[in-house]
Amino acid sequence: MTARLKHFGWGREGEGASAEELAAVRRRYAARFHADGFPERAAPSLDALTLPASRLTPPATLAAICTAGTYDRAAHTYGKSYPDTVRGLLGDYANAPDLVAYPRNEAELAAVMDWAGGAQAALIPFGAGSSVVGGVEPRLDSKRYHGAVSLDLRHFDRVLEVDRASRAARIEGGIFGPALEAQLRPHALTLRHFPQSFEYSTLGGWIATRSGGHYATHLTHIDDMVESVRVITPAGALETRRLPGSGAGPSPDRLFIGSEGILGVITEAWMRLQDRPRFRAGGAVRFPDFLAAARAVRALLQAGLYPANCRILDPQEALNTGAADGSVAIMVLGFESGDHALDAWMARALECCADHGGRPETDAADAHREGAAERWRTAFIRMPYLREHTVGWGVINDTFETAITWDRFEAFHAAVTTATEAAIREATGRPGQVTCRFTHAYPDGPAPYFTFHALGAPGRPPEALIEQWRAIKNAASDALIEAGGTITHHHAVGRDHRPWYDRQRPDLFAAALSAAKRALDPSGLLNPGVLLDP
Amino acid sequence: MTARLKHFGWGREGEGASAEELAAVRRRYAARFHADGFPERAAPSLDALTLPASRLTPPATLAAICTAGTYDRAAHTYGKSYPDTVRGLLGDYANAPDLVAYPRNEAELAAVMDWAGGAQAALIPFGAGSSVVGGVEPRLDSKRYHGAVSLDLRHFDRVLEVDRASRAARIEGGIFGPALEAQLRPHALTLRHFPQSFEYSTLGGWIATRSGGHYATHLTHIDDMVESVRVITPAGALETRRLPGSGAGPSPDRLFIGSEGILGVITEAWMRLQDRPRFRAGGAVRFPDFLAAARAVRALLQAGLYPANCRILDPQEALNTGAADGSVAIMVLGFESGDHALDAWMARALECCADHGGRPETDAADAHREGAAERWRTAFIRMPYLREHTVGWGVINDTFETAITWDRFEAFHAAVTTATEAAIREATGRPGQVTCRFTHAYPDGPAPYFTFHALGAPGRPPEALIEQWRAIKNAASDALIEAGGTITHHHAVGRDHRPWYDRQRPDLFAAALSAAKRALDPSGLLNPGVLLDP
Repeated sequence: MTARLKHFGWGREGEGASAEELAAVRRRYAARFHADGFPERAAPSLDALTLPASRLTPPATLAAICTAGTYDRAAHTYGKSYPDTVRGLLGDYANAPDLVAYPRNEAELAAVMDWAGGAQAALIPFGAGSSVVGGVEPRLDSKRYHGAVSLDLRHFDRVLEVDRASRAARIEGGIFGPALEAQLRPHALTLRHFPQSFEYSTLGGWIATRSGGHYATHLTHIDDMVESVRVITPAGALETRRLPGSGAGPSPDRLFIGSEGILGVITEAWMRLQDRPRFRAGGAVRFPDFLAAARAVRALLQAGLYPANCRILDPQEALNTGAADGSVAIMVLGFESGDHALDAWMARALECCADHGGRPETDAADAHREGAAERWRTAFIRMPYLREHTVGWGVINDTFETAITWDRFEAFHAAVTTATEAAIREATGRPGQVTCRFTHAYPDGPAPYFTFHALGAPGRPPEALIEQWRAIKNAASDALIEAGGTITHHHAVGRDHRPWYDRQRPDLFAAALSAAKRALDPSGLLNPGVLLDP
Repeated sequence: MTARLKHFGWGREGEGASAEELAAVRRRYAARFHADGFPERAAPSLDALTLPASRLTPPATLAAICTAGTYDRAAHTYGKSYPDTVRGLLGDYANAPDLVAYPRNEAELAAVMDWAGGAQAALIPFGAGSSVVGGVEPRLDSKRYHGAVSLDLRHFDRVLEVDRASRAARIEGGIFGPALEAQLRPHALTLRHFPQSFEYSTLGGWIATRSGGHYATHLTHIDDMVESVRVITPAGALETRRLPGSGAGPSPDRLFIGSEGILGVITEAWMRLQDRPRFRAGGAVRFPDFLAAARAVRALLQAGLYPANCRILDPQEALNTGAADGSVAIMVLGFESGDHALDAWMARALECCADHGGRPETDAADAHREGAAERWRTAFIRMPYLREHTVGWGVINDTFETAITWDRFEAFHAAVTTATEAAIREATGRPGQVTCRFTHAYPDGPAPYFTFHALGAPGRPPEALIEQWRAIKNAASDALIEAGGTITHHHAVGRDHRPWYDRQRPDLFAAALSAAKRALDPSGLLNPGVLLDP
């Protein structure tokens, strides 16, 4: 029996950062902020939580799949963003959903929607709760809604059908990453979509949020892996046709890809799969600086080589993640194939790197699982377990991600870094650190991913961490929108990115999307406040 | 000064099939249908046409850009489909637009929209009129509309801005293919989007119809080459943000890609470009039969090699286009790159072919411009010039195209071929010919493209060709929809594919799209009858 998800923090009960991992992070932050030590503060236990009284009672027919239990409501209140973690630490569950529903099939899901319509209850689709953009928190207009139901899709957890000839499978939307891969393994197939949240996120969530995964080039977003979707809306069910390609009007799939739960619940999708890789070539390449590494990425992408991995870390980020000593930028480069050896691909990629001063860390052709690349990967996977501790220390750390065309990238990088550094100084009274990597890249531009570290202003209560975080987040978001970027490349919009999304997307597109929503969700039940005001 | 487009037939005035080309086609049809010869029938000259009286008068402010001239109205009545050609031959211009407007800029375009709203005039966006699906013909509900204006975008004909670093350009929507490539050439860049209609179609038309082009794999549709769009709608202008990738809600671009003129007019787009190819590898590969060639395509696509060309022709189609002698199926295979030699790619592709019985036509590595491949290409480009002649002979010939996943392909191919052959026999009283090729292919399935040839039932008037054509088209369309395909992979839906599109697309998606249309085009002016009923 798998342990249940924690109501606070990352992962399942009993899991978390090791004492050793925590000691290393504590040392790093102590050195960075010249601090002797940090206060420790633990989140309240489940027993100690006080939740507002539930305002909703399910009808008898749905009682078996609905609960107002404290664990369920607390575990469905937040995603995993920085302010979510601070509020969890403080025991603030003011926005807890009134009920959590666990429908076991589409009929039950539709029944919950029907009941919610009559009860004026908002419905918040919930995969595994890894949103970092306020995508699952019920922040309601209490005049319009009488309460909120978190709609947990965990019972939609199966691979239903595999088409080996087309390398595709029909998969339920609530399946977690590891279960999906485990069920595909006997067929020697894989989705190979590994977002950082892979263990605690779902296929339906990936599609609804345009998740970015393993592939750093070409098939970056989940979008291109979707062959068709099945969606339950308050107005009924719809299913798109399974096709390898089509030109019949605007793509119906693309309306639901990125719809973040405001149009319906994705219960199934036919997904395009890959053969498991048998050939690999790759390793780490060192560059004198980040901009040189970026120019190599551009050359590689415009060469049409499509590496599976082509991530770069700036020198400070490489140091922080143990990938290098802080004097060089690192490219983690990898090709993989289930079909053929990759020597020619790798050879040309290394020439592109050399043209921009890149030197391979090792000459071994199959260094994919070793050295800087592997050290970085481990740090990447373990990182989400740290925040529930570092928040208690008064640390303000977060990431934000975007995309920009190559012509504007260097100025963009400078503007966003400068604005974020200045905001940290202003908000916290001392300098922090801003680092950058590329998570994904395209022939016409990269997807830069920024990380910042700050220490909250001394003597302020933990509550004040949120306003300091918000000042930094606002400044960074303003800078990247003003410099031409997107407010999100793959973290989604949710509620937290709304002010910048509203500046980015054309008003007439919002009008069209609102109209489409009214056709599918006439009462505005689904995820109010996400993407649009209902 | 370029000659103007013909009011009837393909291309510009003074262009057309040579006597030699016509003689060859006449010989082939005579042999196929055991006919001694064919009647010749010419379309009426412009002077001889009788058009219905124009029901619309433009306001004085728009008089300079509007005309009700016979040439303009006749040349904007039809696209280039089979029934369009028959009706043109018969001089039937009952549905001619009442006016043709040639706006020179967005202000004039918006002014036409404003005036049309008051005048209850339908607006039909017109690029170069190569639609084969009834996309530009004003077929109006005369109770709702007082007339139709064909909105010709030819003055939007410039590349406005080039971003060499990102390999992208801002280009106006009304530009024809050759002008677009000519204006990019000084920058050593190319869109490399070459639909069969390349010479007589526009960027805006390609985007509005999800055109399929040069690349047989990977970047098949124009969709993936669009970085952002600018659209004028009756509700105002909108412009999406220029981004290499984004995860901010459903893609605004994708709502307009494939919108076929019902949501707005695409006046500009930032397009992703390519370096001009410097390295090529390829040639023709012979296979014992079509299904063996199809299995090789599947292997090649699932290997992740992304050839630029990977088209297969069945033995009869290879014979008809002069690519082979009728005993073998042909694959036209090509790799190209602006960056690197392609030996490794080509070597592995030929292994995939050999696994399925494929033998290269020649050992020369750079056979791209020679042999079967080149003969097929020439036939492909010249083909559209023939129909204006063959229709007069009583020939019924057309193509239809679709896509299907690999698991269903072989049964699908048999069902569609059988149904079309049976319909030809039933409609015309004698057997015809149905051939198939792949125009594009994906890891999860191919895009089969069918061609049929029939001879109209003897003794019937030319008018009767349309009903015979329709019986064949209906049977083929029914068969492909019932067997799971799409009614169009890249020809679009228009008016002619509506019955099958309506079966294919989910009803709730139609409801959402209708609602989006009402937000952008509240009076339902734009291209009524295409994709949706207004």
